[in-house]
Amino acid sequence: MKFIDRLVTAIHEKNSVTCVGIDPVWERMPAYIIAEAEKTYGKTWEAAGSALLEFGKGIIDAVHDLVPAIKPQMAFFEQYGYHGLKAFEEICAYAAEHGLLVIADGKRNDIDSTAKAYADAYLGETDLFGEKKAAYQIDALTVSAYLGFDGIKPFTANCDKFKKGIFVLVKTSNPSAGDLQDRYAEDGLRNFEYMAHFVESWGADLIGDCGFSEVGAVVGATYPKDVERLRSLMPTVFFLIPGYGAQGASAKDIAAAFDKDGLGAVVNASRSIIYAYEAAKTTDYKKAAREATEAMNRDLRG
Amino acid sequence: MKFIDRLVTAIHEKNSVTCVGIDPVWERMPAYIIAEAEKTYGKTWEAAGSALLEFGKGIIDAVHDLVPAIKPQMAFFEQYGYHGLKAFEEICAYAAEHGLLVIADGKRNDIDSTAKAYADAYLGETDLFGEKKAAYQIDALTVSAYLGFDGIKPFTANCDKFKKGIFVLVKTSNPSAGDLQDRYAEDGLRNFEYMAHFVESWGADLIGDCGFSEVGAVVGATYPKDVERLRSLMPTVFFLIPGYGAQGASAKDIAAAFDKDGLGAVVNASRSIIYAYEAAKTTDYKKAAREATEAMNRDLRG
Repeated sequence: MKFIDRLVTAIHEKNSVTCVGIDPVWERMPAYIIAEAEKTYGKTWEAAGSALLEFGKGIIDAVHDLVPAIKPQMAFFEQYGYHGLKAFEEICAYAAEHGLLVIADGKRNDIDSTAKAYADAYLGETDLFGEKKAAYQIDALTVSAYLGFDGIKPFTANCDKFKKGIFVLVKTSNPSAGDLQDRYAEDGLRNFEYMAHFVESWGADLIGDCGFSEVGAVVGATYPKDVERLRSLMPTVFFLIPGYGAQGASAKDIAAAFDKDGLGAVVNASRSIIYAYEAAKTTDYKKAAREATEAMNRDLRG
Repeated sequence: MKFIDRLVTAIHEKNSVTCVGIDPVWERMPAYIIAEAEKTYGKTWEAAGSALLEFGKGIIDAVHDLVPAIKPQMAFFEQYGYHGLKAFEEICAYAAEHGLLVIADGKRNDIDSTAKAYADAYLGETDLFGEKKAAYQIDALTVSAYLGFDGIKPFTANCDKFKKGIFVLVKTSNPSAGDLQDRYAEDGLRNFEYMAHFVESWGADLIGDCGFSEVGAVVGATYPKDVERLRSLMPTVFFLIPGYGAQGASAKDIAAAFDKDGLGAVVNASRSIIYAYEAAKTTDYKKAAREATEAMNRDLRG
């Protein structure tokens, strides 16, 4: 089954459009996890990797039956060298075992032959001594398209071949998003609108039974008017929406992303879920994450 | 000493503006390296990582006294999971030991707090049980700026603090580069020219003794007219120029990137150097890489 159909099926099954972002920030992880890792491995990179893994698995244990997908943010793993990437690999596998779709947030991008290496790494197979093997258990990847179509083609080729998805950066949620993205061109379109036309066309041959394509878009919740505009420009594109929760956007800000059946987007929250234990004044980060996820589900169902 | 001053010093010492790209493609690596890895570790990801490392070290042995810098392309390492990233880490360290500057080609990008994680990972320090440690031995990183300035600021902050550099994607070397980059805006500037203004300004407080700043630009050799235009728009920006060699551009195409002292850019070649042994019909890939590097140095000095 195509990625996008698996995603829509999971959204129906879980009755949730929430995606939980796994962004392990060292100073915000529960102290007992850090202490346990240090006790076992000393103050080493290996210990750090084991703490990241433990934390990530705990979040998955807490939310796996409540949401369709998780989104590990690669930067926070890469920070710990290859031990961090090992934890990332194992978290992806653990999420897959627990029936979650995995959207790797790597914002990868490069030109043709190198883009193919990224596409094969995250959405395809790697040649390992004459055998083809998948290096990671990932369903979809975020990508940047500043380099144009030949940098995207290897990803869409693997979406087609391996039933995977991509989410292309169109309009991001950060304060400086508009620096380049909001520039008006001669034809009256802003760059992000132009990018939206690209993204809609890149997925035209990859439309699933659900009516959406394997080529999705990252659309920030923090610019509500742009969400509405982008929905009209990209009718077959599923949105990955960051900016809800810690970044300040509400359910109302993103209502325009959804169709009458409540489909069209997954909404990511990271810090407001995985560090919910801080505000809840508890050490049980799993229980707090579960409650925050349930609250977010309720809010988004409304 | 600032990264950019270290780079200019190395260019003078080696009398070379060549940067050797380390892009290990499985089916093009010498068969004996693959066979040796398989013999030691079996047909495993670990074996693949050890083959990448062996190949990369061989290239460094062959060229380290001839060039100022190497540019490992992260995609080709990430393809082999964490064993690939381990090889990447070790290649960076090996290059540093051999007096080479390391430009990691990761084209990383994200919004503020996540961009900080990338910046700390590759150009700064990571908190490891209360101690600050560098995860990788890297001097500079390629980055994408589609997300605007708040995605770049954590990188420039680390450039300042840790004397590192970045190269921002401005005009790339691939056929589709123009899809977004060549779009004219209302003000008559193309997107890549607008990006050039950003890049020039982002480095304004980070100018080294050599007169260039820590904030460089990726400018493809395959669009000679744009190289000339970008030189005039970014007088204090050092260029990282891909597209020479396998992608077809010549020394003449990039002459405009350099000032009267022969400074202003490093020119990267990957496949035409590291796989030179194929055309030379030899199994000695190191000797062939050395000869190809010497030929490139001669060509670029002219």
